[in-house]
Amino acid sequence: MSDEQMRLGPFSGGRPGIEEQGISRRIITLLSDFGTEDNSVAMMKGVILGINPEVHIVDISHSIEPHCIEVGSEILSTSFHYFPRGTIHVAVVDPGVGGDRRGILVATANYFFVGPDNGIFSNLYEAPGFKWVRDLRNVNFFLEKVSSTFHGRDIFSPVAGYLSLGEDPKGFGPPIADPVKLQRAQSHVRPGGGIDGEVVYIDNFGNLITNIDTGVFENGESLAGNGKDRPIPHIEIAGATVHGLSENYQESGIVRFGAHFNGWSRLEIFFSEGRASDKLNAGRGTPIKVRFERDNS
Amino acid sequence: MSDEQMRLGPFSGGRPGIEEQGISRRIITLLSDFGTEDNSVAMMKGVILGINPEVHIVDISHSIEPHCIEVGSEILSTSFHYFPRGTIHVAVVDPGVGGDRRGILVATANYFFVGPDNGIFSNLYEAPGFKWVRDLRNVNFFLEKVSSTFHGRDIFSPVAGYLSLGEDPKGFGPPIADPVKLQRAQSHVRPGGGIDGEVVYIDNFGNLITNIDTGVFENGESLAGNGKDRPIPHIEIAGATVHGLSENYQESGIVRFGAHFNGWSRLEIFFSEGRASDKLNAGRGTPIKVRFERDNS
Amino acid sequence: MSDEQMRLGPFSGGRPGIEEQGISRRIITLLSDFGTEDNSVAMMKGVILGINPEVHIVDISHSIEPHCIEVGSEILSTSFHYFPRGTIHVAVVDPGVGGDRRGILVATANYFFVGPDNGIFSNLYEAPGFKWVRDLRNVNFFLEKVSSTFHGRDIFSPVAGYLSLGEDPKGFGPPIADPVKLQRAQSHVRPGGGIDGEVVYIDNFGNLITNIDTGVFENGESLAGNGKDRPIPHIEIAGATVHGLSENYQESGIVRFGAHFNGWSRLEIFFSEGRASDKLNAGRGTPIKVRFERDNS
Repeated sequence: MSDEQMRLGPFSGGRPGIEEQGISRRIITLLSDFGTEDNSVAMMKGVILGINPEVHIVDISHSIEPHCIEVGSEILSTSFHYFPRGTIHVAVVDPGVGGDRRGILVATANYFFVGPDNGIFSNLYEAPGFKWVRDLRNVNFFLEKVSSTFHGRDIFSPVAGYLSLGEDPKGFGPPIADPVKLQRAQSHVRPGGGIDGEVVYIDNFGNLITNIDTGVFENGESLAGNGKDRPIPHIEIAGATVHGLSENYQESGIVRFGAHFNGWSRLEIFFSEGRASDKLNAGRGTPIKVRFERDNS
Repeated sequence: MSDEQMRLGPFSGGRPGIEEQGISRRIITLLSDFGTEDNSVAMMKGVILGINPEVHIVDISHSIEPHCIEVGSEILSTSFHYFPRGTIHVAVVDPGVGGDRRGILVATANYFFVGPDNGIFSNLYEAPGFKWVRDLRNVNFFLEKVSSTFHGRDIFSPVAGYLSLGEDPKGFGPPIADPVKLQRAQSHVRPGGGIDGEVVYIDNFGNLITNIDTGVFENGESLAGNGKDRPIPHIEIAGATVHGLSENYQESGIVRFGAHFNGWSRLEIFFSEGRASDKLNAGRGTPIKVRFERDNS
Repeated sequence: MSDEQMRLGPFSGGRPGIEEQGISRRIITLLSDFGTEDNSVAMMKGVILGINPEVHIVDISHSIEPHCIEVGSEILSTSFHYFPRGTIHVAVVDPGVGGDRRGILVATANYFFVGPDNGIFSNLYEAPGFKWVRDLRNVNFFLEKVSSTFHGRDIFSPVAGYLSLGEDPKGFGPPIADPVKLQRAQSHVRPGGGIDGEVVYIDNFGNLITNIDTGVFENGESLAGNGKDRPIPHIEIAGATVHGLSENYQESGIVRFGAHFNGWSRLEIFFSEGRASDKLNAGRGTPIKVRFERDNS
């Protein structure tokens, strides 16, 4: 994850808005793998509103692939910083519920995060704004009866609700230094400037979103360049090769596959006439290679 | 449905919260089989906000199986009590819309319910907090033009909206004594303590939720026990047998199927490596049997 | 689209409500083809709440068929008028994002609309309440960094947010006179009173919603009548014929297919025992014919 400060940049100039506000705790977001068919999400909202009827609740997504912590972490870490300072983000992809995994409260410079200590907040711990992690041990902030199967409702929702009322975060439990971190596939820049990465998410349009962000890409590009010409990227994925980047989805013209940096600032492969994921039979984990070549090479 | 009072229990101790509040009418929940792809739900919300722009609207679920009153009733009755006192619950699974079925307003000690008189509120009528049912006859609370196909928008939404503004509930129509009740499959305890039940819902994870609640289970358990040892439950479903209960989803170890009481306080069958529903080819209506045996028998 | 004024009619009599209120700008609705699995919608909401934390955000639908401007336009134009005056409707079905299509702000007597200039707001331009269209050129109301792939987040959401704060609409950009209009399939009345139309939407229940509205239908009916008897409509679609209209879904009796005017005031074909779309193998674009015959003919 890149600099949280930087990510708040969109609002830093121009019109009045978030920058002029103090820390507000009035928004709670929810992310889970519960789906919207069952009533799990509604129970969480009921519990929160029972504690703080004034809070705004916003769904990030409840359609995370069941038990898939990696995807939950990805969806959260690419969107949380678009919310106002002080927003409390609750994330419940929690296959280990009822076992011995801890529940945690994470603070960064601008946000709080509440959920299981299973790596779903991994991206926060090495980012610039990171402050601390606490073990949710104070049962006074839980529902009176805590089930062994639904801590989203019985622990994380009431904790978020009380936090939104202005409770001192220190009261929720002691700090810990060893939160669980996901071992996730990182993209790598090779000495000559090539990049190895993989697909980490398929979006609603079938676009293939990779783990190659602008920082990694520019690093590879500068290693491959010779200071004179800007090298052209050639992107190989699932047997197809895309030459150069497109500005948008329409530009691709006769080239049917295209690549660009998406709304998450990640390298994304798209297909101009449909779903790239179907056309390439590619999915999460599909490898992608970028090599840079100078125009006249 | 068990005691509504008891169900409000989660908040009765600990931190300040719902118990300290008076009756608030500021939250309206919506449940339907309209899906979220169409604009039906949005029209309902627009109508409500046109009457009371200050109300909080929360979706319980709009993905109830089309026309399936039983499932709508189940999803509502296992979650409504998590909302603050005074919440108005609107439930529209309404295959008889435009015919001669009545529209009703139901009051319990803590909540209001608005919807068709087709049994969707059956679970309320014999529960401790039940107060009355009224026939929605006062057209002053309807949209001016009432369609024959969408009472959710034209009748139930405006009624909920006006109720949330503090209108006297008595003004919506006369009380009735014969609301429609669903004939639903009940679980039964046999003389020796065995229990016969069935699956009533498949959740987002493929878990099989049954109509056996903690009360029925404990009844069977005590009939089967001899006062010395606590008997062990053996649960048979779709050719599989689960021995004993698990505390959570992780505990199952080498036993691949497990059983426990879920977030609805219902006996639930899960599979530790995927969807129990697929693995057992089980669904709504699949029978389940519990027999209790002493350890040394 | 019929008269917007007329459509606001539901509230014009009866109880206090929308008519008594002034123009309020506190509600923003969102419609898109982004789905609810990704985090795109959440990012839009975060941006809006960062600008105006007090606004109510309501989803109309995010499950529009990807890139299908026609369906987005249909879903919006049949529901927007149910919201209170002053509501800001944001619609993002935007296959041309990042190209040279304009972003626009549309005003009608009672509402604002924000989105791409690709025809999604076509239905508004010839309706009675229409006021003007502006080209969104004032970058002061955009996020500081505008991507080429996600104007919903970077342009349309902040514009809606600032508009909801009371910014003068004139400040967002200059008026334009040539907004893009969709060439959509219109229904036609033949000289003898027959009507040719087509299916434009399949709803959650598999009902076939057509482009024949009550105005067109009554026009055909009056051309076919002779002033004495009211003629009976015979509706042909996909090899089936429906004789006469039903009041509701239940009335059809032994006639398994039925037709009536739905909640959008459109002629709709339904099947009493399931999904008409599956039973008739019909979908968007399937032709429908109405012919009127006198009873004794």
